[in-house]
Amino acid sequence: MSPFFPSGAELGRHTIFPGVDIQTTACERMMLSVVEMKPGSVVESHSHPHEQVGMVLGGKALFIVGDEQKTLVTGDLYRIPGGVVHRVIASEEGLRALDIFTPVRDEYL
Amino acid sequence: MSPFFPSGAELGRHTIFPGVDIQTTACERMMLSVVEMKPGSVVESHSHPHEQVGMVLGGKALFIVGDEQKTLVTGDLYRIPGGVVHRVIASEEGLRALDIFTPVRDEYL
Repeated sequence: MSPFFPSGAELGRHTIFPGVDIQTTACERMMLSVVEMKPGSVVESHSHPHEQVGMVLGGKALFIVGDEQKTLVTGDLYRIPGGVVHRVIASEEGLRALDIFTPVRDEYL
Repeated sequence: MSPFFPSGAELGRHTIFPGVDIQTTACERMMLSVVEMKPGSVVESHSHPHEQVGMVLGGKALFIVGDEQKTLVTGDLYRIPGGVVHRVIASEEGLRALDIFTPVRDEYL
C-alpha cells in the first residue's frame, strides 16, 4: 500500500443517495471523491462545514449552489464554500465528477 | 462573476516549467489547478508545505514522489503530503491532470 499512489482496491466505496456512488481516498487534510451519478439521480439539498471544490469528468448535471444554478459539463469547475446548501441533478447522460473536501470527511473513508 | 462557477476567462494562467501550463481557481482553503504538460516536459523536483492531491485526466506520466515512482494514466489518483519532494515526467503523449492544493498557493492565483 503506497502512501502516494492509492490503488482502486484501497478506495472507500459508499452509496450516498439512490444512484449516486462514490469512491474515496484521503491525505491528511483533503479527501478525493470520484462520484458516479446515474441518469436522473439526485444529490439532495444539503450542506456541510467542509469546503468542497470539484471538476466534471463526464456527462452533465444541474448544480444548484446557494442562490445560483448552472448546468455543468465535462471540464467545468465548481467551488462550494463550507456551509453553503447545494443540490445536484444528473442529466439523462448521468454525471461523473471529482469532488475534493477539506477537512477529510471521516464518514466517507 | 459567480462565487461558485468560475468561467474559463477568470482562471489564473501560469507557465510553471517549460512546456507545463496551469489554469487555476481558488476557494477559501483549496486551489484547483488544471495542468497541461507537453510531451516529454518535466515538472522538476520540488516540494512545498501545501498538501497536494490530484487525478490524471488524460495522457500518461512518470510520477516520482518521495522514494516511490509510478507511471500514472487517465483516472489514476495521487496524494502528495506537504514537504514531500516530487517530480513528474510527461510521456510522449503529454499529460493533463487536476491538482488540488491546501492551503491556496497565492503565487498561482
